[in-house]
Amino acid sequence: MLKVGVNGYGTIGKRVADAVCAQPDMELVGVAKTRPNFEAETAVRNGYSLYAALPERVDQFDDAGVPLAGVVDDLVAESDVVVDTTPSGIGAQNRELYERHDTPAIFQGGEDADIADVSFNARANYDEATGAQFVRTVSCNTTGLSRLLAPLDETYGVKKARVTLVRRGGDPGQTGRGPINDILPDPVTLPSHHGPDVQTIFPELNIDTLGLKVPATLMHTHSVNVTLESTPAAEEVRDLLAGESRLFFVPKHAGIDGAGKLKEFAMDAGRPRGDLWENCIWEESIAVQDDDLYLFQAIHQESDVIPENIDAVRAITGSASKEESIALTNESLGVGLDSVFAGQNQPFVAADD
Amino acid sequence: MLKVGVNGYGTIGKRVADAVCAQPDMELVGVAKTRPNFEAETAVRNGYSLYAALPERVDQFDDAGVPLAGVVDDLVAESDVVVDTTPSGIGAQNRELYERHDTPAIFQGGEDADIADVSFNARANYDEATGAQFVRTVSCNTTGLSRLLAPLDETYGVKKARVTLVRRGGDPGQTGRGPINDILPDPVTLPSHHGPDVQTIFPELNIDTLGLKVPATLMHTHSVNVTLESTPAAEEVRDLLAGESRLFFVPKHAGIDGAGKLKEFAMDAGRPRGDLWENCIWEESIAVQDDDLYLFQAIHQESDVIPENIDAVRAITGSASKEESIALTNESLGVGLDSVFAGQNQPFVAADD
Repeated sequence: MLKVGVNGYGTIGKRVADAVCAQPDMELVGVAKTRPNFEAETAVRNGYSLYAALPERVDQFDDAGVPLAGVVDDLVAESDVVVDTTPSGIGAQNRELYERHDTPAIFQGGEDADIADVSFNARANYDEATGAQFVRTVSCNTTGLSRLLAPLDETYGVKKARVTLVRRGGDPGQTGRGPINDILPDPVTLPSHHGPDVQTIFPELNIDTLGLKVPATLMHTHSVNVTLESTPAAEEVRDLLAGESRLFFVPKHAGIDGAGKLKEFAMDAGRPRGDLWENCIWEESIAVQDDDLYLFQAIHQESDVIPENIDAVRAITGSASKEESIALTNESLGVGLDSVFAGQNQPFVAADD
Repeated sequence: MLKVGVNGYGTIGKRVADAVCAQPDMELVGVAKTRPNFEAETAVRNGYSLYAALPERVDQFDDAGVPLAGVVDDLVAESDVVVDTTPSGIGAQNRELYERHDTPAIFQGGEDADIADVSFNARANYDEATGAQFVRTVSCNTTGLSRLLAPLDETYGVKKARVTLVRRGGDPGQTGRGPINDILPDPVTLPSHHGPDVQTIFPELNIDTLGLKVPATLMHTHSVNVTLESTPAAEEVRDLLAGESRLFFVPKHAGIDGAGKLKEFAMDAGRPRGDLWENCIWEESIAVQDDDLYLFQAIHQESDVIPENIDAVRAITGSASKEESIALTNESLGVGLDSVFAGQNQPFVAADD
C-alpha cells in the first residue's frame, strides 16, 4: 500500500483525498489544512486525520473544537508520497519541507514548471515521472488540452493548434473573485502562457493560445482549432476520440447546452460533488474544414486533474505501468460517462455533412 | 407500502423520486417525462420505470433509444398517490387526469392555491392534509418562511412579519433565464404575492413581503424581520430555533459567506446533488432590537420542498402522524447538518451583546 499524504485541503485537496481512499493500492495518511473552516470539519467527519499546516495556528483548531492528529511535518514524515494541493506559490515554499524528509511530492499546475523534474499528464507522458523526486500535475486547462492533442498528434500529426480558452472567473465558493459583468482578455498580451504550459508536456508542439475570463464559475470552455497534417473526415476524428477513456461526448439529444446542465447531469449521474473528471466535448461541434479541425470542449476546473494526480502517485513511485494505472484510476473512480446514454451508439452525423 | 408515482422529472421530480426510494414505507412506481433528454437517461440508469408524459411523443423516446414502461395514464393507474412536479400551470391541466383515476395527488407551489383542498407545510399544518384528494406543497420560499414562523408564532406570538426575498434568477441549468446584470424589483407592486402564499398556511398571520431578482442561481436569501408580541433575548430565539429539525445554523467559524460555500459544504458533506433541505440561517445574524427579531436565511430552491412532499404523501393517505412522518423523512434522507460541526455546541454570542 502506498501511504499518501495530502497537503492542502481545498478544492483540489479534498478531491484528491477522496480519490486516494477509493484506490485499492493506496492509503490516505491524512490531510493538512491552515484553518478550522467547514472543509476541516468535513475532513474530520470523513474520518481523515487532520494536520495543522501552520503549527502556530494549532490553537485556532482547538478553539473551534476541531481535533488534530499533528502538524504538517508529521504528515510528511509518515507519507511515502505527498500530493501538495496548496494555493499557487505555496507549493514552492513547501518544497524544502519535502526535501528535508526526502519524500517524493506532486505539485499542482499553479506552480511554475521548474518546481519539478517533470510536468505530467497521464495520457501523454506517464513514464517520464517514474523515479522523479518532484512531479507537477499540469493545470486543468493544460490537462484538458493534453488529453485531446495526444491522440490527434499521434494519429494525424498536428501542424498547429490554436485554442481560445474562455475561462470561469472563479470557483463556485470563491466569492471574492470577478468579473461579475465583463469579458476580460486575460492575459491581454498574446499568445497566452497556456500554450507554453502545454509545451511542458509536448515540447515539439506548435500551439498558440488566447485566454479570456468571463462571469461564470462552473467550468472553462475551449474553442479549439487544430490544423492537422492529414485531412480525416469529422466521423473519423469522432471515432478516434471516442476511444479515449477521459474524453466524454455530450450527445446531441441530451439537451445539454452549457456548463449548468453538464454539472446537473453529473449530479444526476451520482458523481461526488457533481465532478466531471472527463473533457466534455460537444459531439455536434466536431467539424473538419479542409485540414482544420474544430470543436468545443468544457473543462471542469475543480476536478479534471484528480485522476491525473492519482496516476502521478503511481508513476512517481513506479508502482504501476501507464495502462495499469489509468485503468485502475478510471475503474475505482468511475471515470467514463458514455454508458449513461442509452442512445450513445447511434450513428454520428457531422454538422458539415 | 405506498405506491407513489412522480409526474414530471425535472428539478423537483427527480429529487422526489430519489426521496421516495429512500423511504421504508414507499415504493416508486415510476416517473413521467415529456422528452428523452439527459434527465430521462439518468432516470433509466437509476432503474426508474419511465412513462411518456405526452403519448404523442413516444416516438422521440424510441428514436433516442430510451426505453419506456408506458404512458402517464398507466403511471397514474398504478399509483396510490401521484406527486405532480410538472412546470407551473401544467399541474392544473393534469388535475382532470388524477380525478379520472380517483388518485390523490400532490401539486407544487407554482400552482394556484385553489388547485388543491389544502396548502401544506409539514411543520405548520400536517393534519389538515389527511383525507384530502388534492394537496399543494407550498413553494420553496413559503416553505422556508413557514418553518421559521411556526415556532416563533407559537412561542412568542408574531405581531408582524416583514420579509425581503432576494431571489435567484433561475436554477443552475436554466440558461435561458435572467437577469445577468441587474437587480429587479419583482414583482414591483408591493407587497408581493409571497405574503398571501404564506397565509395559505397561517391564515391569521400579519405578513408583508417584498421580492427582488438578482443574477444568482444557487439559492434564495431572505432578509427577515419579525416583530414579536414579547421581547426574548437573541440567545433565547437562537435556542428555540435550534430545536427545529429543518433549520440549520451556519456557524460563525465555518467560513461560509454565501450560497456558493453553502453548496460546496453540502457537497463536501456528501449530500446528493449538493442539496440543502434545511433553511440555512446565519447564526451570527440573529439579533433582537426591542421587539424586532432580524436574521438572514438562505433557501435552496431546488430541494427544501423535498422532505415536505414526502410528508405530504403520508399526510394525504393518513399513513403516519405528523411527528412520525417528519422523523422518518428526516432519518431516511439524512436531514440535519448540525452534527457535521464539531464546534456546534459552543456558546452562542449574539452580535448585539
